[in-house]
Amino acid sequence: MRLPLIPRDNRFFDLFVEDAANMVAAARVLEQFMRNYGERERLASQLRDAEHAGDQMSHNIGRQLEQTFVTPFDREDIHALISRLDDVVDLIEEVADTFILYGIEAPTPVAVEQTEIIVRQCEQVAEALANLRTFKGLEQYWIEIHRLENEGDRIVRRGIAELFTNGGDAVDVIKWKDVYTLLEEAIDACEDVANVIERIVVKHA
Amino acid sequence: MRLPLIPRDNRFFDLFVEDAANMVAAARVLEQFMRNYGERERLASQLRDAEHAGDQMSHNIGRQLEQTFVTPFDREDIHALISRLDDVVDLIEEVADTFILYGIEAPTPVAVEQTEIIVRQCEQVAEALANLRTFKGLEQYWIEIHRLENEGDRIVRRGIAELFTNGGDAVDVIKWKDVYTLLEEAIDACEDVANVIERIVVKHA
Amino acid sequence: MRLPLIPRDNRFFDLFVEDAANMVAAARVLEQFMRNYGERERLASQLRDAEHAGDQMSHNIGRQLEQTFVTPFDREDIHALISRLDDVVDLIEEVADTFILYGIEAPTPVAVEQTEIIVRQCEQVAEALANLRTFKGLEQYWIEIHRLENEGDRIVRRGIAELFTNGGDAVDVIKWKDVYTLLEEAIDACEDVANVIERIVVKHA
Repeated sequence: MRLPLIPRDNRFFDLFVEDAANMVAAARVLEQFMRNYGERERLASQLRDAEHAGDQMSHNIGRQLEQTFVTPFDREDIHALISRLDDVVDLIEEVADTFILYGIEAPTPVAVEQTEIIVRQCEQVAEALANLRTFKGLEQYWIEIHRLENEGDRIVRRGIAELFTNGGDAVDVIKWKDVYTLLEEAIDACEDVANVIERIVVKHA
Repeated sequence: MRLPLIPRDNRFFDLFVEDAANMVAAARVLEQFMRNYGERERLASQLRDAEHAGDQMSHNIGRQLEQTFVTPFDREDIHALISRLDDVVDLIEEVADTFILYGIEAPTPVAVEQTEIIVRQCEQVAEALANLRTFKGLEQYWIEIHRLENEGDRIVRRGIAELFTNGGDAVDVIKWKDVYTLLEEAIDACEDVANVIERIVVKHA
Repeated sequence: MRLPLIPRDNRFFDLFVEDAANMVAAARVLEQFMRNYGERERLASQLRDAEHAGDQMSHNIGRQLEQTFVTPFDREDIHALISRLDDVVDLIEEVADTFILYGIEAPTPVAVEQTEIIVRQCEQVAEALANLRTFKGLEQYWIEIHRLENEGDRIVRRGIAELFTNGGDAVDVIKWKDVYTLLEEAIDACEDVANVIERIVVKHA
């Protein structure tokens, strides 16, 4: 059945780009948080704002979805996409929050490297979403996102192994194992966004 | 399409009230557990019974669901409601179990305060379910449940921050971080029940 | 509606048997890992191979599923079955990986006993799948799998209680709590496979 008179509502592509821009901004604030740790309270507060902004955008996309008859791709995929983008921003915010809650004195090199991975993954996701409209030429983005995830995996494994071999303080092991694990969850969440985009593109191939 | 000759089966409302009563009873037993910690073995055993009773009720509601042609609201929402109620009771039981398994000598004020939040949330959920039949006037309950969740969030954050700043024993940090996190999961699970109820009511608005 | 001219595609039963054989092999390699810990690097590498082989089989079953018109049972149950089998192999591999990552010097008797439970559960799952074609006489397998899960539960509870009562080193508590929990997740994952098989059989009763 063709519905030639009812155009697909392409507004959604702009909304995804906006949502991804919020995610990239959050990732960059987390990088500043790691590099200017003296400013942590102010930057953590910015991340809470980014989280709320992201929730608002998701809510807005959800409402548009209810009012739209013909969406550019499956409703469930639109839902999956905004949920996974939300997860990334939530985890980024949770990382900063955990540093403050645990009274951590300074980020380790491992945490900084993990954060750099997140920034680069978010940038790739944002570019992929900016080019989603054509459903073409997106392979390069997820190849790079998966490569970054693999790199992140090596970093976190080195970080955790160091915790146990350095014979450090047990409370430090508890703190850093939680922080590295959270950062890795954010990295995995970026990969999950890429997987949703890949699924959408494959359906349209 | 109207089906005037097939009345909706309203028996379900009574079954939800019964299931919620079991949850409130479990929450109150956990409060006793915290306040009369010398009785912990007996009270933990009561919680295992409450968990089994809850499983039985869920199973019973599930069976009624299969035999019923017209349910008062979506089948998937009935499933979600009984699953989320089950989760609360499971987590309450798991808290008591963890205290015993970890050989904890006495509850901390933070754990007692978290338990009080759970009791009050469960009471609100039970009242909301007792009034679900009309699908009206339930806003007050979830406003209060979300307010309690926020209060619980402040309590657990204070509790976890104290663990790390007090310079206490690392094994105590491990124990209490797990216990506070589990209690917080129970608080979040109560909020999840409220969210399911809210969704059901919104669909009927 | 009967479709007598389109035979059900029974190839799937053979594919499940093959997938289960890979899982049993992985479980047995984990047992060797525990018993010949000096060979751990080589055996962990074998487990990574088993994980990749399992992924390949799942992928293959998924592709056959897309090309098949009449499957022997619901598509979603086939998906659930291969996902749950995958989870078991992933967790088995993760256990070995965690031993190495945490720099653990030697397995404890608790870890060895948990691994034995996993091997016996996997063998039961494999036998159940070898007999799935008839959808009959499978009760014995899941009764045994649930019994093993209960036994595993008692072992892990004893193991965790010992960690806290022995007054051991806090870093050891962190390591072993993670390892025992992972092994328990693998045991629960075997039970999840059994639950999927049970659901499939009940639908065909």
